Amino acid sequence: MPRVFKGIWPVAPTPFHDDGTLDLEGMKRVLDCIIDQGADGICILANFSEQFLISDAERDLLTRLSIEHVAGRVPLIVTISHFATQIAVERARFAKDLGAAAVMMMPPYHGASLRGSPDQIFEQFQAVGAVGIPIMVQDAPMSGVDLPVPLLVKMATEIEQVKLFKIECPRAARQVARIDCPGRNGDRGPLRRRRSDHAACGS
Amino acid sequence: MPRVFKGIWPVAPTPFHDDGTLDLEGMKRVLDCIIDQGADGICILANFSEQFLISDAERDLLTRLSIEHVAGRVPLIVTISHFATQIAVERARFAKDLGAAAVMMMPPYHGASLRGSPDQIFEQFQAVGAVGIPIMVQDAPMSGVDLPVPLLVKMATEIEQVKLFKIECPRAARQVARIDCPGRNGDRGPLRRRRSDHAACGS
Repeated sequence: MPRVFKGIWPVAPTPFHDDGTLDLEGMKRVLDCIIDQGADGICILANFSEQFLISDAERDLLTRLSIEHVAGRVPLIVTISHFATQIAVERARFAKDLGAAAVMMMPPYHGASLRGSPDQIFEQFQAVGAVGIPIMVQDAPMSGVDLPVPLLVKMATEIEQVKLFKIECPRAARQVARIDCPGRNGDRGPLRRRRSDHAACGS
Repeated sequence: MPRVFKGIWPVAPTPFHDDGTLDLEGMKRVLDCIIDQGADGICILANFSEQFLISDAERDLLTRLSIEHVAGRVPLIVTISHFATQIAVERARFAKDLGAAAVMMMPPYHGASLRGSPDQIFEQFQAVGAVGIPIMVQDAPMSGVDLPVPLLVKMATEIEQVKLFKIECPRAARQVARIDCPGRNGDRGPLRRRRSDHAACGS
């Protein structure tokens, strides 16, 4: 399991057959293709992977198949977002037990009107952090949740496993700078100083 | 299985233990309580039931337990909404095979930004309609989907199994009147004329 996350980690698309069922052989080819292209790691079950189209059983199947097929050639990040903390925790345990390098999570959201409060967001990430696998915080417009910089900094400071950020909000570069990734002058902010082997930001 | 849906059909809340697991004995008591109070039917797994907090396996478990425990004392509506049509269809088949009286569905939605177009909404309801169980169309603000009256009328007219509406949008009474439930003067609109044994509206 890598201690440093760096380089290029593409999100793998999920291939489907025309009838909507999973194309599992196609999934293996997608993973092989990404590895052949020299990626440093792969993220599965993200929004680009159309995670919103699959059942829980299909999610488990894809997680297991991907980790087993990649077989350590590159590390994997498994996306586990769910509105229910208990389900996110179970997904994190499953990914960890199979050997995932990290999990990625959006803050809790459902539909047009259900969003976690800042305290509830913190608590969900804290509960998943207790599983003991690095977490990438996904700040994605699809969640409809505003993640202000102070909340992101608080999570990175107080939850040991919050080590990575995927910033997809508008003006992402500015947001990344504000959560204290290395600036142009090479300074290290508090997150980098706390654990320089872990922290990373990307978009 | 009733041909006429009328009277009072409460949505059953889902009881949870403090650790977030399902309280299955509590679920039985909730159903018994609703029946004891004289309800004409019960709807499970709706938003008031906190369907957004449960896994697919818990959903299946609650569907089976509820139908078996109620054992025909009153008819049940099982909510089956999912962004993926294939999953909504599978849930409809599962509910029908167990003996549900009807299924309830919101139009496809996910998070803040994914919504079915009017054509995609129609196609999802059409695919579920092919399963052969009555459908209640749920017009709920949580979906974030606008369901204009012409689309609702088109679904009720062209999809045989679309027989019921649960209208939760603002000004619900006006919306119900516009989709042609019996007016104050006792006239029957096109939906009622087409199959007066089926159509019903509620909020």
